[in-house]
Parts: sequence; structure tokens; C-alpha cells
Amino acid sequence: MTSSNLQPDEPVNPQTDIFLRACYRQPVPYTPIWMMRQAGRYLPEYRALRSQYDFLTMLRTPELATEVTIQPVDIVGVDAAILFCDILVIPEAMGMELRFIEKQGPVFTDPLRSEHDIDQLKPVAPQEDLPYVMEAIRQIRAQLAGRVPLIGFAGSPWTLAAYMIEGQGSSHFRTLRRMLYAEPALLEKLLDKLTIAIAKFLQAQVEAGAQAIQIFDSWGGLLTREAYQYYSLPTIQRIIARLHRTANVPVILFSRGRGADLDLQMDSGADVLSVDWTIPIGKARQQVKEQVAIQGNLDPAALYAPPEILQEEAKSVLSGYGDGPGHIFNLGHGIFPDVPVEHVQALVEYVHNDRKNSHAN
Amino acid sequence: MTSSNLQPDEPVNPQTDIFLRACYRQPVPYTPIWMMRQAGRYLPEYRALRSQYDFLTMLRTPELATEVTIQPVDIVGVDAAILFCDILVIPEAMGMELRFIEKQGPVFTDPLRSEHDIDQLKPVAPQEDLPYVMEAIRQIRAQLAGRVPLIGFAGSPWTLAAYMIEGQGSSHFRTLRRMLYAEPALLEKLLDKLTIAIAKFLQAQVEAGAQAIQIFDSWGGLLTREAYQYYSLPTIQRIIARLHRTANVPVILFSRGRGADLDLQMDSGADVLSVDWTIPIGKARQQVKEQVAIQGNLDPAALYAPPEILQEEAKSVLSGYGDGPGHIFNLGHGIFPDVPVEHVQALVEYVHNDRKNSHAN
Repeated sequence: MTSSNLQPDEPVNPQTDIFLRACYRQPVPYTPIWMMRQAGRYLPEYRALRSQYDFLTMLRTPELATEVTIQPVDIVGVDAAILFCDILVIPEAMGMELRFIEKQGPVFTDPLRSEHDIDQLKPVAPQEDLPYVMEAIRQIRAQLAGRVPLIGFAGSPWTLAAYMIEGQGSSHFRTLRRMLYAEPALLEKLLDKLTIAIAKFLQAQVEAGAQAIQIFDSWGGLLTREAYQYYSLPTIQRIIARLHRTANVPVILFSRGRGADLDLQMDSGADVLSVDWTIPIGKARQQVKEQVAIQGNLDPAALYAPPEILQEEAKSVLSGYGDGPGHIFNLGHGIFPDVPVEHVQALVEYVHNDRKNSHAN
Repeated sequence: MTSSNLQPDEPVNPQTDIFLRACYRQPVPYTPIWMMRQAGRYLPEYRALRSQYDFLTMLRTPELATEVTIQPVDIVGVDAAILFCDILVIPEAMGMELRFIEKQGPVFTDPLRSEHDIDQLKPVAPQEDLPYVMEAIRQIRAQLAGRVPLIGFAGSPWTLAAYMIEGQGSSHFRTLRRMLYAEPALLEKLLDKLTIAIAKFLQAQVEAGAQAIQIFDSWGGLLTREAYQYYSLPTIQRIIARLHRTANVPVILFSRGRGADLDLQMDSGADVLSVDWTIPIGKARQQVKEQVAIQGNLDPAALYAPPEILQEEAKSVLSGYGDGPGHIFNLGHGIFPDVPVEHVQALVEYVHNDRKNSHAN
């Protein structure tokens, strides 16, 4: 399936490949936009399905995953679809029992606490262990029929390790951070296993039809810069190097909370760096010196604003990036479940109509 | 009582005023150290008291607050004491009902949701509304008898507003952030009221004997840089200006998650900027161009490390700051409740014994 992916120097269909062109810093007629968690509860159509099926059933049923993946393309008009899935399917495929608790989120029954626990983790064979993911990708590609590209994704090794050790989301991740300082060799062993599993998983996603990949390093911001350089970034580097050797897809790296360290992230091999809303996008662009594209970074809370304020905020991101290619509009973090869908639609329309910063040349 | 405070150009007792000298970037024989939440559960002596009294009783009883404030001075050997209190006593004094729920933390029974709610908030008269705070400060000063200085503190207006609107700590603070974009005039009204209340409270703390003040802008990191400049920083600026007009105490500002914005924080009027562990302290120092002192910034999780690793981490902070005055050693966030007290003691000893970066001249 990779033959259908965009090659860096290939001519593209400007109606369908604006997002991919922007990833490679090629000229585009307008700034493409998609939103993290765009397949989500703010859409009445998503909520209607969610009322019938639990979260795990939805992501494990290719027909349902396909339907919600495509909803924001139809309803909101985004320029890329992102696979409806969860970063925790990898730990699950490695043998950890995962439950989703309503209003609390995902919880591992037995978090990793010892070398024995880590040794017990199975290697991942994506085709056998996660066939529903590959099938969903094939169905989504078929149903999208080239309208917009499909983004696959995975969590970074550090971020998956965070959940696997802590057992769930946490405000301080104390168990994880204790291991970081008290038993770093254990953590490294886990990170190594995860790096291999994630690389294979992403490779399989591309083979099934994913046309771009985003790596969510959601908890990279827990680390010192030095520890980020040692524990998170090299694993991401290895994953991206492997992907780039075998697949022609752009890779987006989102290390949340590390907007001051884009100089390091540039060495990851990522084609696009996604930044959260706490750093001005103009400052992000300065850091990367036109070497990679930048994705972001509207405050997700701006979608609560009335249209005229929302428009001002969107404008400030667009003009903050400035002229020239290499900007993908996105939120600085996942979309909130209770924003009005009309606001989301208005945002997409506004970004599409903004030609003042047109990247065409 | 302010007559006992250090004046910027006054000769000091080097045994007792090392912390205050460092705040003013004066030469000191070694780097002073204290730790956020140093009066806390990692101390067996603290836990012994906490098993008898609930948290609110402890902070409302001057004798108990005094005892736990002084514990880390006696047991750990820190160079400053910080008042045992809570930033949420201000919203409580304004009329909000506050409860502390074990393992969950503070919760407001009726979070602010409307202009009416905000209009109902009472002005704060610190002497009448918070007499136990002032009495604790007087008792602590008397018992410390000049051994180390006493730091008073308050939350920033933005940070208190965060809890008052959301009702409690939160991973996303969606209610707060909705108000920020959907009803900014309401938020500004609340911030104005809080600014006045906090300024008066800090003034009263200094009059009672606090010799330095720290402002905890714990949730400043939720904002875009632009919104931080508009909603948080000016209120802090007003508070510090008022303090500096009437009291000769150094002011420390800790805007967590805003290490990339020390250029802005320098305009706050703070004498010391406290930084979290996600930014290298050398980079922090570069940003402030020797205009203010820097406090920080060991990863609190480093206290889980065995002594030789902990020492390396502490050394990296000390040498990261480098030679010359203006460094106060601290953690990048509050101390965790389950770190071994021996590690905390070893850290203080190591910092005190490190003369390679001696600030004396």
C-alpha cells in the first residue's frame, strides 16, 4: 500500500495532499488543519455511537473505528484523518490487562513494578496481536478514497512506560519518577522493549495504509532536559530512523511541555514538530530554522470562545507562524469534549479562508 | 517587626542571613537551600502530629503551625523556614467553604460560576480574618530566634482563581479555561478582587514578621505566553509593587511551567525567580542577565535516588548555575511525601559543603 503514499519530490493532488505537502514544507494554497482527538465526544455523531458501545469495543471494531475516524472529515472538514485508536493498545498487546473506567480513563490492573514484570512482557507482532488496527486502517483508506490522508500514531516509549509503571494517568507520576532515579536500569530495559514494539507497530500501520505518523510523547514534559535527551529522545530517534528507512511517510513528533527544546527535537529525525500552546508558534519556528515543519498550537480552550474571539486567536497563531511553508494548524493539545461543534467548524473555515499567510508561491 | 528584616545594603549576620543575602545577589559563603513543602509528610515528626490533627486544624493552630514550620530547620538543616499554611486560606477568608479530603486534597463546596458568586466574595482584613496566620508568624519568629529567616507566602491571583472556579485541582482546568475565553470580564473582576486581598495578606505577613515572600503562581503554566502576560503577570506586578513600597523584604516568584518566559517575569519586580526542573538552571540564569536571583531547580524525584546519584544531580544544578552570587538551591516543585528523610539531609549537607561554586568574594 505504500505506493499510494506521497514521495517527497512527487507531484501531488493539491486537493487531497495539502496536509502531506505541508509536512514536507512544500508550498500549499492554504494552511491545512486537523485537531488532536478530533474523533471525539464534542461530535454528537460520536456520542451517539459511544452510547451504544464502550471505548474498547469501538477501537477494536474496525467498522466503528472507521466510522468515527471519518466523522470529523465529513462534519468538520479537517485536512487529515487520524486513526481512532489508543496509545495503550501496545502495552495491552505486550500482555498487560487494560480497563477503561468511565470518567477516570484507562487503568492497568497490574502496573509494572519489578524486573520480573518487565521480563514477562511479550514482543509485539502487530499483524497477529493488533489485527483490528490494521483492518481499520485498510477500511478507512478505502472509505476516504483519497479525500484526505490518514495519520497513524503511537505513544513514545517514555510515555507508554509512564502509564505501564504508574498504572494510570497521574498528576505527579511518582512511581515512574522514582524508578527513573532509583532503578534507571529497569526503566531502560522497558524503554528498549517498547522501542522495538512501537517501531514494528508503526511500520505495520504504514504497510496497512497510514500516510503519516504522529508520535505522542505526551509525558516528555515530566523530565529534565538532560533526562529527556537520555530517556525519551533517543528511543524516538530509533523509531523514526527505522520508519524512514522503510517507508516514505512524514513523521510528526509531539513532545508536550518541551517547547523550549525544539533544538533537541530537530535531531529526532521528525519531519514535523508539534508544539503545545504555552510557547508562541513564532518562537517555535525560530528555533527550528526552517529545517522542519511546525504543527500547532491553538489553546484548546480557545474553542470555548465566541466566534469573533476564536477568530482572533486563530489569526494570532497563523500570523505568529508567518509567511512561508511548513505550518500545519492544530490545537496545542487534544480537543475538549464539551466545545460547541459549530466553533470547531468555524475554526476550520477560518483557517481555510485565511490566504494572507498563503504558502503558495 | 519589619525593623528586624534585612535591608539591601545593610551588613548581615552571615550565619543567619545567607538566604536573604542570596535573594539580593550578595556574596555568600555557600549556596543556601530550602525546599518547597519542606514542612511535610516525609518527616516522621510531621506525620506524628498529622496523625493527631487534620490539616486545617494544624494550619489554624499557631502552636502546631509553628512546630511543623521549624521541624525542617532542626531536622534537615535548611537555610530558611517557610510558614506552614495553605494558599487557599484567602478564598476561605473571602467566604468560600473549603474542605480537605484525604488523598484528594482541598475542595471548595461551591465553586464560583457566575458574576453573582464573584460579587458575593468579601474583602479580606487579614488581622481579623486570618489572625492565626499572623500569630503563627510571631511565634515562629520568636522560636527561631534568628537562626534562619522566615518566608511568608501566598498564591497568585490566577492560581487562586483556578481553584475557586474549578473547585479543586484538575488535570485540564476546563471550567477555568472556558471562563478565560468565554467570559474574560468575569475572570478579570475576580483577579482584581484577589489582587487586593493577596496584597493585603502579604503585607500583614511582613508586618507580623515574615522576612521574605514567595508568590506561588502554580498554574501560570496553563496559559499562553500572551494570556500569562495579560492575566497573571500584571496582578503579580501590582502585588509586588505594593509590597516593595512598604516593606523591605525580597520577593520570590514561582510561575511553574513558565521557565521559557523569565524575560517577562523579570518585569514583575520579583527579586528572585524560582524555576521548575524542566529548564536547565544555566539557561534560566542566561535569560535574567544577572538582574535577579534564581531559585531552583532539582527534580523533586531526584530525592528518590541513592546518595551518589542524588549528589551528581545536585552537583549538576550547582554547576549549572555556575559561579557568582544569586543562587538559592531548591527543588523544582514541592518535595514528595515518601522520599527518605536521610536523602533530604544528605542533599542539604552536600549543598552546604560545595564550595567549588562558592559565592563569597
